[in-house]
Amino acid sequence: MKSVNIAVIGAGVVGSAFLQQLGSVKSSIKYNLIYLATSKKAVYDKSYSPFEIGQWSSLLQSSVQTPLSPHELTEYLKQSPIPVILVDNTSNETLANSYPLFLKNGVSVATPNKKAFSSSLTLWNDIFAAENTGLCFHEASVGAGLPLISPLKEMVATGDEIQSIEGILSGTLSYIFNEYSTISPNTSKFSDIVKVAKNLGYTEPDPRDDLNGLDVARKVTILARIAGLQVESPTSFSVQSLIPKQLESVESADEYLQKLPDFDHEMEKLKSEAAQEGKVLRFIGKVDVASKKTSVEIAKYDASHPFAALKGSDNVISIKSKRYPNPLIIQGAGAGAEVTAMGVLGDVIKVAERIATVQK
Amino acid sequence: MKSVNIAVIGAGVVGSAFLQQLGSVKSSIKYNLIYLATSKKAVYDKSYSPFEIGQWSSLLQSSVQTPLSPHELTEYLKQSPIPVILVDNTSNETLANSYPLFLKNGVSVATPNKKAFSSSLTLWNDIFAAENTGLCFHEASVGAGLPLISPLKEMVATGDEIQSIEGILSGTLSYIFNEYSTISPNTSKFSDIVKVAKNLGYTEPDPRDDLNGLDVARKVTILARIAGLQVESPTSFSVQSLIPKQLESVESADEYLQKLPDFDHEMEKLKSEAAQEGKVLRFIGKVDVASKKTSVEIAKYDASHPFAALKGSDNVISIKSKRYPNPLIIQGAGAGAEVTAMGVLGDVIKVAERIATVQK
Ligand SMILES: NC(=O)c1ccc[n+]([C@@H]2O[C@H](COP(=O)([O-])OP(=O)(O)OC[C@H]3O[C@@H](n4cnc5c(N)ncnc54)[C@H](OP(=O)(O)O)[C@@H]3O)[C@@H](O)[C@H]2O)c1
Ligand SMILES: NC(=O)c1ccc[n+]([C@@H]2O[C@H](COP(=O)([O-])OP(=O)(O)OC[C@H]3O[C@@H](n4cnc5c(N)ncnc54)[C@H](OP(=O)(O)O)[C@@H]3O)[C@@H](O)[C@H]2O)c1
Repeated sequence: MKSVNIAVIGAGVVGSAFLQQLGSVKSSIKYNLIYLATSKKAVYDKSYSPFEIGQWSSLLQSSVQTPLSPHELTEYLKQSPIPVILVDNTSNETLANSYPLFLKNGVSVATPNKKAFSSSLTLWNDIFAAENTGLCFHEASVGAGLPLISPLKEMVATGDEIQSIEGILSGTLSYIFNEYSTISPNTSKFSDIVKVAKNLGYTEPDPRDDLNGLDVARKVTILARIAGLQVESPTSFSVQSLIPKQLESVESADEYLQKLPDFDHEMEKLKSEAAQEGKVLRFIGKVDVASKKTSVEIAKYDASHPFAALKGSDNVISIKSKRYPNPLIIQGAGAGAEVTAMGVLGDVIKVAERIATVQK
Repeated sequence: MKSVNIAVIGAGVVGSAFLQQLGSVKSSIKYNLIYLATSKKAVYDKSYSPFEIGQWSSLLQSSVQTPLSPHELTEYLKQSPIPVILVDNTSNETLANSYPLFLKNGVSVATPNKKAFSSSLTLWNDIFAAENTGLCFHEASVGAGLPLISPLKEMVATGDEIQSIEGILSGTLSYIFNEYSTISPNTSKFSDIVKVAKNLGYTEPDPRDDLNGLDVARKVTILARIAGLQVESPTSFSVQSLIPKQLESVESADEYLQKLPDFDHEMEKLKSEAAQEGKVLRFIGKVDVASKKTSVEIAKYDASHPFAALKGSDNVISIKSKRYPNPLIIQGAGAGAEVTAMGVLGDVIKVAERIATVQK
């Protein structure tokens, strides 16, 4: 039976769902968990003996080991007797910066962490450099478990030409706009919906971390780079922030939420203008390959457009290409522990099927 | 550099587009075309020397070699010095029946041919038997190049539970119903639209081969089996035929088309009933896992449903699962040379990345 060794960093919302799914994956390959770390603790042993996946939580709790640094981890993993996949379930930037090091040393990476793919173009190029012997898969970095990254890469590899990509790429902002700007007019206030979203746990602790558009800009950066554009960074193009200028620098999330109603009229104006044209507002990311333009903005869509009918916190992406003049559309939950973990585990299986070996 | 040998059967609509795309694929693997056959001719040599992919058409034309039988082909391919992928771009049933033979002998298969996966359950089980050493990928057997089969298999492998699948799975019938039953009422006749579809080349030479629902039933069979149902065959469940009983046995396509207007009132009745409820008609395939039911039928959809807004001859599929209570929706062209060939080439790349070896 073929096997791979698995090293997992991060056991939070996604990480714990991932470990749960890994424990009962249906595959012809054996997955040996040999390293597990959170920010303060770690579990591993020098002989690479796998530990019981189902016991991860108690093992971590009772462990007195501390996490290895990226360099130490590379040294440890590259000596592994069988191929290794490192699963990064954090949003840590230092770790993301170390992917080239892992990959050069033959350690493969599977991750939902956007950071590595949406920071500097140099980091992107270093990750996908031809001389790297490890593989790097990141399906869940955009749209969680939705099949987006793999199909897009496949279109490019087989000679399709991507023309444009348009999508609702944030679960939080999908929810907010789906509730705020509906086909049958409603009187909800933007500020109220942001508060509800926060109370439901849909936003970051400070909702401005969603409303500044940076998360969407990072996802646009990833998609644009796959489509062939040399996007320098997620701050190198136009990103419309949903935070009123005057509230950008207020100290606390509470103060922001308290003052937000004073600005409701701004969004209300856009909404009623759209409604007069029979349209709804959506917060989207856009890539236009011909003009080499990427952007993040509020856009208006006709009631019959698929983006207008979106529900809950679903994501949707629409890809136009030489082969799909009528766009390819993919839609569904774009956040959440289970679907994100599925995207990561799907990548782990794909990598394992390419690198696993028979253990002697 | 890693390499695989490629054997291609069929160079028609899909086959020729496939060969074209294979010739300029972007991949770190070298693809050696070592065998090419149509129903009457073949090109290959005993030493497995690859031939120029760009020359396939003239080589085939000038060849005096005849195709190998499935047994001869197996003998030839299993001696190949490097791993082989057999690409079946035909709709031939004998060939489909030979997949277990190929796979048992270590020859992998990539194909858009539905036959092997939608005939008897025994054949399906033989194809995916654990002892087979070849891999079998068939993304383009449903929805052409749309990412359906891989994501669905991944959902199952990672522990998601498929609850239901509903889809418009025939490009031809998508076109016919999208034109016939529209959100804003129209006066088109069913028989006229079938004629237009035939004239545009969207139907089989005899449109009844689309309208009998068997093609959709085959696709439903494939999806249901992946979702975990033991579907015996595509004729083992309820399939609504769109051919009036009295026209099932008329000799020619011409006679059928000539008499079809006499039956327009039947479809018209359904259409106006739907319109009164604000709905449109669509011809769909359905899988319900809990009740173990599969069906092919005319169904009614609300104007706001994604199926109602479908355009041209697009396919669409909606998958509900434990992880996607709000369905996962995938939509886009589900037929055509380029997108189908892309689905096949995508599979070839996936298989090659798993089996290619460095040639000595
Ligand atoms: N949640 C979603 O719906 C979703 C969707 C798509 C993508 N993602 C991405 O998935 C990743 C994980 O998200 P999450 O929601 O699971 O986050 P989370 O709940 O905050 O968990 C993060 C985990 O990473 C660990 N960690 C952080 N820095 C670390 C370091 N330097 N070394 C070792 N461990 C470290 C944390 O350890 P401590 O517990 O010790 O702090 C924690 O276990 C992120 O990149 C996120 O963007 C999430
Ligand atoms: N066209 C689409 O849009 C589409 C979409 C999805 C899936 N597909 C599937 O793709 C497959 C190919 O479709 P197509 O449209 O390309 O068909 P096609 O144009 O009719 O081409 C079929 C090819 O297969 C060859 N062939 C048939 N039987 C053979 C045999 N026994 N041995 C060797 N060669 C044989 C034919 O050779 P000759 O030329 O000598 O007859 C021809 O080259 C079918 O399974 C179809 O269902 C097609």
